[in-house]
Amino acid sequence: MAEPPVASIDSFFRPRGIAIVGASARLGSPNYQIVQFAKEMGFKGNIFPVNPTRNEIAGLKCYPTLLSIPDPVDLIVLVVDPQVCVTVARDIRQRRQERGDAGAVTVIAAGFKEMGTVQGAQLQSELVSTIKMSGARIIGPNCQGVVDTYSGVNTTFSVPPDTHRGGVTILSQSGAFATSFLRWARDQKLVGINKFVSFGNMVDLDFRDLLAYVADDEHTKVVSMYLDGINDARGMFEVAAAVTRKKPIVAIKAGKTTMGTTVAHSHTASIAGDNDMYNGAFRQAGVIRAQSVAEFYHTSRTFDKAPLPKGNRICILTVVGGPSTICVDELVSTGEITLAHLREDLKREISQHLVAAANVGNPDGYIDMTASVTPQMHTEVLRLLMQEDAVDGIVFMTTPPGFIKDEELAAAILEGYHSTPIEKRKPLLSVLLAGNAVARCRTLLECGGVPTFEYPDDAARVMINLVRYSAYRRRREGS
Amino acid sequence: MAEPPVASIDSFFRPRGIAIVGASARLGSPNYQIVQFAKEMGFKGNIFPVNPTRNEIAGLKCYPTLLSIPDPVDLIVLVVDPQVCVTVARDIRQRRQERGDAGAVTVIAAGFKEMGTVQGAQLQSELVSTIKMSGARIIGPNCQGVVDTYSGVNTTFSVPPDTHRGGVTILSQSGAFATSFLRWARDQKLVGINKFVSFGNMVDLDFRDLLAYVADDEHTKVVSMYLDGINDARGMFEVAAAVTRKKPIVAIKAGKTTMGTTVAHSHTASIAGDNDMYNGAFRQAGVIRAQSVAEFYHTSRTFDKAPLPKGNRICILTVVGGPSTICVDELVSTGEITLAHLREDLKREISQHLVAAANVGNPDGYIDMTASVTPQMHTEVLRLLMQEDAVDGIVFMTTPPGFIKDEELAAAILEGYHSTPIEKRKPLLSVLLAGNAVARCRTLLECGGVPTFEYPDDAARVMINLVRYSAYRRRREGS
Repeated sequence: MAEPPVASIDSFFRPRGIAIVGASARLGSPNYQIVQFAKEMGFKGNIFPVNPTRNEIAGLKCYPTLLSIPDPVDLIVLVVDPQVCVTVARDIRQRRQERGDAGAVTVIAAGFKEMGTVQGAQLQSELVSTIKMSGARIIGPNCQGVVDTYSGVNTTFSVPPDTHRGGVTILSQSGAFATSFLRWARDQKLVGINKFVSFGNMVDLDFRDLLAYVADDEHTKVVSMYLDGINDARGMFEVAAAVTRKKPIVAIKAGKTTMGTTVAHSHTASIAGDNDMYNGAFRQAGVIRAQSVAEFYHTSRTFDKAPLPKGNRICILTVVGGPSTICVDELVSTGEITLAHLREDLKREISQHLVAAANVGNPDGYIDMTASVTPQMHTEVLRLLMQEDAVDGIVFMTTPPGFIKDEELAAAILEGYHSTPIEKRKPLLSVLLAGNAVARCRTLLECGGVPTFEYPDDAARVMINLVRYSAYRRRREGS
Repeated sequence: MAEPPVASIDSFFRPRGIAIVGASARLGSPNYQIVQFAKEMGFKGNIFPVNPTRNEIAGLKCYPTLLSIPDPVDLIVLVVDPQVCVTVARDIRQRRQERGDAGAVTVIAAGFKEMGTVQGAQLQSELVSTIKMSGARIIGPNCQGVVDTYSGVNTTFSVPPDTHRGGVTILSQSGAFATSFLRWARDQKLVGINKFVSFGNMVDLDFRDLLAYVADDEHTKVVSMYLDGINDARGMFEVAAAVTRKKPIVAIKAGKTTMGTTVAHSHTASIAGDNDMYNGAFRQAGVIRAQSVAEFYHTSRTFDKAPLPKGNRICILTVVGGPSTICVDELVSTGEITLAHLREDLKREISQHLVAAANVGNPDGYIDMTASVTPQMHTEVLRLLMQEDAVDGIVFMTTPPGFIKDEELAAAILEGYHSTPIEKRKPLLSVLLAGNAVARCRTLLECGGVPTFEYPDDAARVMINLVRYSAYRRRREGS
């Protein structure tokens, strides 16, 4: 019988049905959680747990084998032992030959090449060749699979079904790294996710394929990648350069050092390339390379929430001296940003809303409202700055005074920010220097489209990245 | 009448009485809050609000003038208008001549040289010369004053009386920066404070004086400094070099750029010096210079909580691949740290406590317990590593599994950490990759002497700083 054609990546994100081979009825176990998460994610198609010893799992009818499922199944999740994976691979091949479905396989199971054993490598090779022969595509093995918050696909035991929806698509060689980002962001709704792909050993589908797939995905506003070592770097960068014409890519590349490379290899059998080569290639492809985890998290989520700046003229609005000095130091450190020039009449107008001791424009583009600030002053000054064409972005810094309530401060800032129509908006980054004491204010601002930060230099680095990408886009559009 | 001798800095931190000139009865106002915080701080001496229009403020007897207070007053807090400050300065001089007290003055009031006006500069000059003539010492003006969590002194309206007590002494030219650190740390008890000094315009007492003062202060375990521009840099570095023979100093220096310098000047009239000069001087004096706010916060509090490593051999204990790769990259990036060599029999012993798929020692010094980890495994492996003389420090990383409770995980880690007697302990830094979802675990670890981090690279940078300072100390002791 002839093998069917190679399946579309769509089978992962818009499957008609999902089969979970190795589903468990044991509450709290990962293999139960996968079924539960898949079920609670709002997926419109059918979910089929596969386990020969059960009739039902998590309220869903259970099937003894993959072949016994009567309805179409596009996405197969494998959470059985490595040896069993190889057996199931033959069922997948048979299904594809007989019915043409089963085009997407994600192998969550581990115990393959990453073990560093001959047996692990052999099992992986057998698994992959059987599945590839069938025309099905593979994500994994040794991964956490895929999530799509719009179609309701979730093959993981780690990404909760109520994960905040948004425009960030995460592509990661490390499942732990990607889920850490989500857990970090969770309680204050700092990031909204569209798709999530954990590649693991990355034997088939890789960054190149997924980048090409999400290039025109309307729900993906920014692509955030963790990589530690890839085979086809050139191919990936070619596709990346095409993607960055349309939307930003933020990357963190681990395995910068020999020792880091060894660690990466012990986890996913990947080989990291030369760090300087990557630096140059990222820059040329217009990919923003984050130098720290914090920069990666913050830049990714800000690209999703905030509009792109139209230029590099940034205004600082503050009530705090020291943190603003640190912010300005960082902001101008790369030479890509200048403080915005404020017109004399604009300065006069701003001053009218503030106390006499306020500093408006020393240095140019810098406004210190002083600690004697009211919510109303935030609104009025932000309104003026949002309307000013000579300002491309704003960094706002405060230690929220005890006498202004979180809700009041957030409402005042959002009123100023939203006073401008969406198409004229510019990024407003808010540094709230008070830790969890202002958690409520943070969440309100985040939900209103104003990214928040704990440290002034973090906000500055993100603003540099916004300006850098915006300049890249303008250069590319001009060319 | 002859002027009395120059007063001791002790008058700030161990005054017999504190007078607050400009105290207000208006609830919620800064000048009321200062009285309230002073009162609630547990100060054993008397607190005297001074305000001619009131008989009582916050339950304390109020005095019409500084001179009408019958009891000894060593510390005077000025929160009146700049012009009035100058008048009160004469009263201070008179008190010093007549009674010999009033040796410490902190001028919280602003409106002096930082205004950039002739009048502001003149007022400051008059204020300072009058007070200096009397032999009293000044902190400020335009500052937040001083706190001592042991003696119960608090002249601020910004540092809450129940601030967590500990070994960090903060010296800062920016009040906002210093209080931001405290507010950031507050709810999870991330940092414990001993003394807090906000210098403001720094017309008299400065870093040099305070460094000399805390050098032998038993409660000060680490000095954390924010500076943006100082006059006597050479003098400060001389004293700093003497202090770092005994205890660590962590510094963040703002005003690295011309633009940053302008901002600093607009706040405290300070002039920042050459950035490279500072880099060299910090290094030579054994001061750890933080390159970011996060690094400053984390390094400061870790020096307080954790023991110094005896060498540079660091072990990584993890359950997560990607974040560990990032951590190792950062850890080895400066060449100061090597991963610890683990003896064969130690590796065997560690392996006996873990699942078969665990990676013990690839690369050397690296242990991945895998996601199939139990609380017990944490305890046993940490116990073995804490006892091992060939390991000088440990970075532990986890995305805490949902099936282990916060309390259970924290207890297991602390049991392993505390299994070694205090004098043999080594730093254990814990990266909890789950944001506020594990807030409880974080707080328990922090209170048990195990500093926690959100990002793997933050922990790595702190470990480098611990190792760097420890090496500096050994070099100095050897010389």
